[in-house]
Amino acid sequence: MPEPSRIEIVDREVPAVTGRQALIRTESVGVCGSDTTYFTVGRIGDWVVRQPMVLGHEVAGSVIAVGGDVTRVRVGDRVAIEPGTPCRDCEDCTAGDYHLCADLVFLATPPHDGALTQFMVLDERNLFRMPDDMSFDEGAMLEPLSVGIWACRRAGMRPGERVLVSGAGPVGILAAQVARAFGAASVRLTDLSTYRLDLAAGLGFDVETVGSGGSHPEFDVLLECSGAPSALADGLWRLRNGGRAAMVGMPKQSVELPLSRLNARELSLALVNRYAHTWPTAMSLVASGRVDAAAIVTHHFSLDDTADALMLAKTEPRSMKAVIHPQH
Amino acid sequence: MPEPSRIEIVDREVPAVTGRQALIRTESVGVCGSDTTYFTVGRIGDWVVRQPMVLGHEVAGSVIAVGGDVTRVRVGDRVAIEPGTPCRDCEDCTAGDYHLCADLVFLATPPHDGALTQFMVLDERNLFRMPDDMSFDEGAMLEPLSVGIWACRRAGMRPGERVLVSGAGPVGILAAQVARAFGAASVRLTDLSTYRLDLAAGLGFDVETVGSGGSHPEFDVLLECSGAPSALADGLWRLRNGGRAAMVGMPKQSVELPLSRLNARELSLALVNRYAHTWPTAMSLVASGRVDAAAIVTHHFSLDDTADALMLAKTEPRSMKAVIHPQH
Amino acid sequence: MPEPSRIEIVDREVPAVTGRQALIRTESVGVCGSDTTYFTVGRIGDWVVRQPMVLGHEVAGSVIAVGGDVTRVRVGDRVAIEPGTPCRDCEDCTAGDYHLCADLVFLATPPHDGALTQFMVLDERNLFRMPDDMSFDEGAMLEPLSVGIWACRRAGMRPGERVLVSGAGPVGILAAQVARAFGAASVRLTDLSTYRLDLAAGLGFDVETVGSGGSHPEFDVLLECSGAPSALADGLWRLRNGGRAAMVGMPKQSVELPLSRLNARELSLALVNRYAHTWPTAMSLVASGRVDAAAIVTHHFSLDDTADALMLAKTEPRSMKAVIHPQH
Amino acid sequence: MPEPSRIEIVDREVPAVTGRQALIRTESVGVCGSDTTYFTVGRIGDWVVRQPMVLGHEVAGSVIAVGGDVTRVRVGDRVAIEPGTPCRDCEDCTAGDYHLCADLVFLATPPHDGALTQFMVLDERNLFRMPDDMSFDEGAMLEPLSVGIWACRRAGMRPGERVLVSGAGPVGILAAQVARAFGAASVRLTDLSTYRLDLAAGLGFDVETVGSGGSHPEFDVLLECSGAPSALADGLWRLRNGGRAAMVGMPKQSVELPLSRLNARELSLALVNRYAHTWPTAMSLVASGRVDAAAIVTHHFSLDDTADALMLAKTEPRSMKAVIHPQH
Repeated sequence: MPEPSRIEIVDREVPAVTGRQALIRTESVGVCGSDTTYFTVGRIGDWVVRQPMVLGHEVAGSVIAVGGDVTRVRVGDRVAIEPGTPCRDCEDCTAGDYHLCADLVFLATPPHDGALTQFMVLDERNLFRMPDDMSFDEGAMLEPLSVGIWACRRAGMRPGERVLVSGAGPVGILAAQVARAFGAASVRLTDLSTYRLDLAAGLGFDVETVGSGGSHPEFDVLLECSGAPSALADGLWRLRNGGRAAMVGMPKQSVELPLSRLNARELSLALVNRYAHTWPTAMSLVASGRVDAAAIVTHHFSLDDTADALMLAKTEPRSMKAVIHPQH
Repeated sequence: MPEPSRIEIVDREVPAVTGRQALIRTESVGVCGSDTTYFTVGRIGDWVVRQPMVLGHEVAGSVIAVGGDVTRVRVGDRVAIEPGTPCRDCEDCTAGDYHLCADLVFLATPPHDGALTQFMVLDERNLFRMPDDMSFDEGAMLEPLSVGIWACRRAGMRPGERVLVSGAGPVGILAAQVARAFGAASVRLTDLSTYRLDLAAGLGFDVETVGSGGSHPEFDVLLECSGAPSALADGLWRLRNGGRAAMVGMPKQSVELPLSRLNARELSLALVNRYAHTWPTAMSLVASGRVDAAAIVTHHFSLDDTADALMLAKTEPRSMKAVIHPQH
Repeated sequence: MPEPSRIEIVDREVPAVTGRQALIRTESVGVCGSDTTYFTVGRIGDWVVRQPMVLGHEVAGSVIAVGGDVTRVRVGDRVAIEPGTPCRDCEDCTAGDYHLCADLVFLATPPHDGALTQFMVLDERNLFRMPDDMSFDEGAMLEPLSVGIWACRRAGMRPGERVLVSGAGPVGILAAQVARAFGAASVRLTDLSTYRLDLAAGLGFDVETVGSGGSHPEFDVLLECSGAPSALADGLWRLRNGGRAAMVGMPKQSVELPLSRLNARELSLALVNRYAHTWPTAMSLVASGRVDAAAIVTHHFSLDDTADALMLAKTEPRSMKAVIHPQH
Repeated sequence: MPEPSRIEIVDREVPAVTGRQALIRTESVGVCGSDTTYFTVGRIGDWVVRQPMVLGHEVAGSVIAVGGDVTRVRVGDRVAIEPGTPCRDCEDCTAGDYHLCADLVFLATPPHDGALTQFMVLDERNLFRMPDDMSFDEGAMLEPLSVGIWACRRAGMRPGERVLVSGAGPVGILAAQVARAFGAASVRLTDLSTYRLDLAAGLGFDVETVGSGGSHPEFDVLLECSGAPSALADGLWRLRNGGRAAMVGMPKQSVELPLSRLNARELSLALVNRYAHTWPTAMSLVASGRVDAAAIVTHHFSLDDTADALMLAKTEPRSMKAVIHPQH
């Protein structure tokens, strides 16, 4: 296994494109908690970094060359990038659930390299053209926004429902915005951090410090985005009879749930693994102004400062999302 | 049958309230096309006006007295009113589909009186408290807004979809706003009237004159709100494979559909009969500003001018919705 | 609290019927695990037996008198009985989810008396007429069969799916039969008891001793009917990506789930609280022979031997379901 | 255009297999109404036979050679064949709706040849292994059975529902069996033909001569399988409020529907275009004996008698399904 917490900037040849591939000049790459974990710990569950790996999977850039069979984009297009490439042939892919594909190739999930590079080659089917007035940062944020969209979908969130989002980090705040844009009657965010709650409140959400909200059943839907071990059980108690939860945050330990008591409320719990078919919706939410994706981008870094970007969440409590600009 | 197109203002005693009833002072009553049809023709399908009847079912007002068992509202509350009262005991009611209840009592559907009166008694379960900053006109518009909500629900509209609304009348414009508030990627309205299309465009929608849009399959969802005999078939041709339509407008004749050719597209068509469980959602959409319900109210009338209000749609092409104020 | 494990047979006056009530002569009353727990421990979770209580909620009998407003049944009808009576007025009831009604009155759930009595009065809406060739035992079994129906519904089981049922007790075996009758491609039951697995195999099911099946993901749906603390996690590992589980059995302790590892499979977990709207379906399944409800009734008792019946599951490992016949 | 109603038996070289292809010796080929229409009329809607074409798409046979990349089947396997091959790359395919694929290649839909040949090459993904005790006739019938499965799915048929099937031809009788196998409480078939109704009754269904059933709303679901122009409207009148219909039969003319009157019942109508993902379910239904697919096969023909087979439905009223055996 490679040495943890070590970064090296290497020169590689700019790859050639062929067939349905496009060459992308990378402009904005968001840092996700998984990047930081691979960087410092070298593994997440069964995914282990066994050799040096390029991180980064929240990304937008420009098309600078295209293969001969490319029809969806042109040179000069600014594009947001979906980081997963499925086999398109297994049972899950054929059923429309390509995110469950056992052979999914995903940027910066070992052993596949990610996006912290100045140029990268992608199949045109991973590319989504951005409107002229959308920034690269916004384009990169369509990835965590997709997680929020998928969380709402997995929770079966319906218009008119009261939504509780536990965890006001980047995904929580984007998920909350999605819930509102999908017609939620109300959305409340909980967190321990005043900084994060202030940011959420600034976007118009009800906020609440963890632990101050009691356990009265008052919500239809829970989107657990904190990964805190107790957050799921705490949130479930606040769901009405028949309420639904989606678990987005990944607690490191096993989770203990009082299912026998929760049974009487007939709750439903959906686990969440990435997303599928979300980029067009994410694009329309940001393009129409219904989701402010840039609001979570609080810090910017050049490629040389990648290590600082990867550690930002640990070093700066008053931060939300670091974006690295590989061309700078 | 009573004489058509004749209005009489009569004095009745203000009714007493008991049990779960509340006495409402009526402030805003919207005029619906069905009111006009009952007024001029005396029947809609199997519903026939056999004796003089009070019209009006889009209504908001103030609570001025409550029965001893009322807990949901208080004297002084400003309330929007759901006009239907189901039996709560039949199979449809028990299944949650109270709008299908064979014994539904509905304001201004014969033989039941409606809301064009200064005071009326309603069960508290028909009352929904309005926020202080919501107008009575907006409260009355929650009824046609509910039709729009139900249309989206019946069409199975999902966030990210492209929606075509045929007919830019009051229901069409409200349905379009609902689709947008529920996360539609795009919403286009079609109509013959430039006046209506301008009003829709002013609310931010794409608009198109009927007949100018071709028949290319480009939409996921059709909300047919015009009632024009050809509108359904025209709209269905514009749905993508697997598209879904809800039919809200009621054509007077039978509708001829080329089902054998549409079959290959595997479309779905949902008929629409009012709504159920929509008032809380309607309230939150208007209260949060996601739907501008007042935008469709173009003309105001006193109770004395009810006949003018009922004929407005026929006399004034540059009109959208008449609201009658019974206290004036 | 009353003394545990003590039974007293008391004489009460046969109650009079009025309105929509019917007087039932009770013929078959199945013993459920909850009866045994109330009998021996005096409580289940938050439900505490604070005064002597009649047990029994799986019941069928004959109508011997009806109130003046009864229209659904006649004297002489043989009926299966739904043991819950909702308020029909709260938000859950109105939405069609009467099983979630906070004011649900349920036979033999404290403080309400149950069915271990020779005569009982019920609202006609709790009564479902049985075909002539259906036995009272079968009629009583519609209650646990309803649990099986609801489990399939909560798990979103679809025709063609591969179903794993953990726990081959009465509910497990009925749930397995329901899954097959609803079009499951295959159904496998697991248990520790050879006796139970033999009974299941005799009904045509694949069976497997707990622990012998590995943890290969091979099922679409898990119906957890054992209540064993480890059964849920064990079963979840055997679900394919995107699999769905319903938890019917109630473990006494909290359940520890490795959610962070299960997340990658994007499973869904539905808790189960009784059922709603199931009696007509249960009736048709038994009447058509698609479910053999009598197969689980292994022992019969007279009212005098109620204590033996209540303890059967604990004293006789080669037993499945005790039925008490109050007229004997 | 080729001369209608003319058949020629030609010698072609047995094709070689490569990659994921398999060579099939064709054993049973069912005749569908579309085969007869192409044979006699030369077109169905927009599909026109412009050059001589091999008919037949209901087919089963044996694998006699496989390409180097084939893993799902072996030489000697007996297989049922799914006749459609999608592009696996368009938006519909990626969403799981491969039957809507604009580039779907389908046996015996012009310009693609079908299965009335002794040997044919297919991708292994079109092949489904049959159990040893399933006949080739049954295997071929999985194709119309798939139509029945899809009809139930499109109608949203749920266990416990009352189903009306209009048209007791091959698809109607298979759809009825599917509805029963998926848990329908009751299934009734209507037709004009006593012969067909007798066959349906012999399989245990309620039957009714068209026109004798009145128009009382009594069914939850309508599966329109007759293609008779009036059947859809007639059947819709018999649906309860909130009922759902799937239209399988293809009327040649436009269909006139009294939508304004049907609106009050809030019906749903789903058009049906083939099927997707149905072969495994079809296989399990037949293998388990829940569907008797062979029951509809009434006549057998050799390849030389193909013309008689294609005309059977028109010449022999007491027939249901012709199967041609190309090896005979």
